[in-house]
Amino acid sequence: MTVNSPPLVIGVLVSGAGSNLQAMIDAIERGTLRARIGVVVSNLASAKALDRARAARLPVVVVDHKAHATREAFDAALVEVLEAHGVRCVVLAGFMRLVTPVLLRAFPHRVVNIHPALLPAFPGLHAQAQALAYGVRLAGCTVHLVDAGMDSGAILAQAAVPVLDGDDEEALRARILAKEHELLPEVLQWFADDRVEVTALSTASSTPGGRSEGEDSALGARLRVRIARAR
Amino acid sequence: MTVNSPPLVIGVLVSGAGSNLQAMIDAIERGTLRARIGVVVSNLASAKALDRARAARLPVVVVDHKAHATREAFDAALVEVLEAHGVRCVVLAGFMRLVTPVLLRAFPHRVVNIHPALLPAFPGLHAQAQALAYGVRLAGCTVHLVDAGMDSGAILAQAAVPVLDGDDEEALRARILAKEHELLPEVLQWFADDRVEVTALSTASSTPGGRSEGEDSALGARLRVRIARAR
Repeated sequence: MTVNSPPLVIGVLVSGAGSNLQAMIDAIERGTLRARIGVVVSNLASAKALDRARAARLPVVVVDHKAHATREAFDAALVEVLEAHGVRCVVLAGFMRLVTPVLLRAFPHRVVNIHPALLPAFPGLHAQAQALAYGVRLAGCTVHLVDAGMDSGAILAQAAVPVLDGDDEEALRARILAKEHELLPEVLQWFADDRVEVTALSTASSTPGGRSEGEDSALGARLRVRIARAR
Repeated sequence: MTVNSPPLVIGVLVSGAGSNLQAMIDAIERGTLRARIGVVVSNLASAKALDRARAARLPVVVVDHKAHATREAFDAALVEVLEAHGVRCVVLAGFMRLVTPVLLRAFPHRVVNIHPALLPAFPGLHAQAQALAYGVRLAGCTVHLVDAGMDSGAILAQAAVPVLDGDDEEALRARILAKEHELLPEVLQWFADDRVEVTALSTASSTPGGRSEGEDSALGARLRVRIARAR
């Protein structure tokens, strides 16, 4: 973006403690992330992340997934809220619901997740416990575009941390989380600077008819991202 | 080991260029790896690694896998050569043959491999190409104990390198290889110092009767390694 263009508007989806939300708030406060959080949405009214959002005077909306008959209906409600707040980039920050193509099509190549493992190793739940059970010596986190799979989208950035003898799940989680808090705002600044270039490498299944932008990832094409040089 | 105990005798199995063999030779020369290479064995008489071994005045033996009817018979021939040279620790350094329990039982928990990926991601051949095709941002190498599976043994150490925009397979291979050359001698020094403690976590399949030491990994038990503090 040029200096005078409006900042990127981020929508943050949360279900839990919201420490990555806090890292974004802090990075914006510090000026290292030149973006604005347009709304924080949770599927759980009890999410501690909402307290953090309120403390930062951010708009907060609860969309109860149990009030919607299907995942798609839930996602349509999310899209409505996000669009109403001018969101251009959606961050899943400890959001414990699988998203559907309804959300992905509304924000083509602009739905971002952070996962506490060096993907493709240890996708899914309890990544830190999976890593400890396997006995890896390096763990870490991955920021990636979300696609229709489970933690399978194009990787934007990764950071590693050591696994130490005697680590339990909580110790490893904390060490990885500290890296997440650095990595996520850094990647979001790439979006704010319009440096994230996405190309479709291949299509997992051929589809009849034309496809709009964003259909590729929503329909399972393998994407490749490239981070352009800072301008 | 105490200062006066005899150094660890390493047997190195090679099939190719032998740059990891060279890294071991250099580390021994420098004194950072306090061990001795007892013999270098190749399944291919043409392996460039053998020239490196001869230049370092190391004993060299070629055991042609095509001269043996089964993998087990080939491994028995390897074991005979390794034992004749007093080997206590076997390093697969670009050795392009799958080993069998015949070798693993002869050197329980003392067969080491180095793989150019952050396992469990990208096991098997062409790990660097697999990593590029997936689009990871961190690649690396893994030193692990060998078991009956493909790159599935207990991990001893891992090191990461960045994947850079524009990397081809060769560029990534070279960057990872530089890390391999650091990591492998470091891990071998742990063996030389008798700091590698191995425990069986679980048995993949129950087996009747008693089992000798080394049977666990040869038969598919999941092992855990711990590196004891330096004494």
